Amino acid sequence: MQTVQKPLTIALLSGGIDSATATGLAIEAGQEVIGLSFDYGQRHSKELKAASKLAQHFKLREHQTIHIDLAQWGGSSLTDLKQPIPDQGVIPSIIPTTYVPGRNTVFIAIALSFAEARKATQIVLGINAMDYSGYPDCRPDYLDSFQKLANLASKAGREGNAAKLWAPLINWNKTKILEEALRLNIPIHETWSCYSGLNTACGICDSCRIRDEALKKIGRKDLCSERHK
Amino acid sequence: MQTVQKPLTIALLSGGIDSATATGLAIEAGQEVIGLSFDYGQRHSKELKAASKLAQHFKLREHQTIHIDLAQWGGSSLTDLKQPIPDQGVIPSIIPTTYVPGRNTVFIAIALSFAEARKATQIVLGINAMDYSGYPDCRPDYLDSFQKLANLASKAGREGNAAKLWAPLINWNKTKILEEALRLNIPIHETWSCYSGLNTACGICDSCRIRDEALKKIGRKDLCSERHK
Repeated sequence: MQTVQKPLTIALLSGGIDSATATGLAIEAGQEVIGLSFDYGQRHSKELKAASKLAQHFKLREHQTIHIDLAQWGGSSLTDLKQPIPDQGVIPSIIPTTYVPGRNTVFIAIALSFAEARKATQIVLGINAMDYSGYPDCRPDYLDSFQKLANLASKAGREGNAAKLWAPLINWNKTKILEEALRLNIPIHETWSCYSGLNTACGICDSCRIRDEALKKIGRKDLCSERHK
Repeated sequence: MQTVQKPLTIALLSGGIDSATATGLAIEAGQEVIGLSFDYGQRHSKELKAASKLAQHFKLREHQTIHIDLAQWGGSSLTDLKQPIPDQGVIPSIIPTTYVPGRNTVFIAIALSFAEARKATQIVLGINAMDYSGYPDCRPDYLDSFQKLANLASKAGREGNAAKLWAPLINWNKTKILEEALRLNIPIHETWSCYSGLNTACGICDSCRIRDEALKKIGRKDLCSERHK
């Protein structure tokens, strides 16, 4: 009996709910998944431990963590410890200080390199434009443009085999993402969303707030903010 | 008297003649230049010493070297010591094994992040399509596509201030580049082109051959291949 080889997907695994859900969807779709995480000098490096736990949960055959020091030149409250983390709620028309210059562009560029080396046909991203519409690099037009670049950028692309960028959550809000995460049996307690860099989730940063609001809506009690009461 | 601040350019400085010439052109055009180099696991890491020497020659106010291990997953003879370096001459229709998957895409993505953090208005690249047309990521359509992505990718871009990608050598051959390098007083003896990873230039790899042919054409005697006779 011949073994049918599954198509290969690179999943950008941050340790948060979004990328975990995207990974779950790729596996559900019959893809073999390799995880890729980034140690980029983020203050909330605890998310990398969460990424490892999720890789184990999904039984990924490979999980690479790339070190790239985007904190080297500052420019974001996520990597610059001198800047406060915002907790005023996300205002969609304003780009928040947690925006790391070029972060997703660097991550996707590296994922494309990795995908080409591993002959992966797809890159799955947990990016969503709804809750974080303040981020310029989480929008559909940005991803479309990156796909065009990928088709021109690489040996595989010029041969018509560039990896496809797949962002299944792009138009979902956090409630929809959580519902899908539960359906896919993602261990939500193992994911990490908080920006603060503390040992337990702060419950007040934008990321905790959006997560908590969605958890409340679906009737969950395990809120980040509850841990500090 | 008020000091007029020069516009800021990030120069991708590999240590070779091309990026040195591009840097010289940016300075000649009245730009203040910051250098950016990459330690990406290349076997010819000697080029990084050359990049430092060139940064000193140009008296750059800042020169950053980013560590990003593209050798981690192989895929190129430039980073994989098990693969031989080709010395059969460049055949434009074939992508050579020295092609590193996604290298320029990763480098330009990081340069865009750096440019945004430093509020630089331009990124100057030594990329040229003539001698290395086998590389998919050294062509004008690739750069045009990257500019479109940059305009959508970043906070600066969405505000109409994305750094401009400038590749002044894109349509020049090596002879023209060397003539310009000499006109700009670039210390050619400080540049490093060889792919082999040896202490002295091998004189036989594609990069040495293209360099030597151009040096011969302009009547220079300091050929890489002469060092081994």
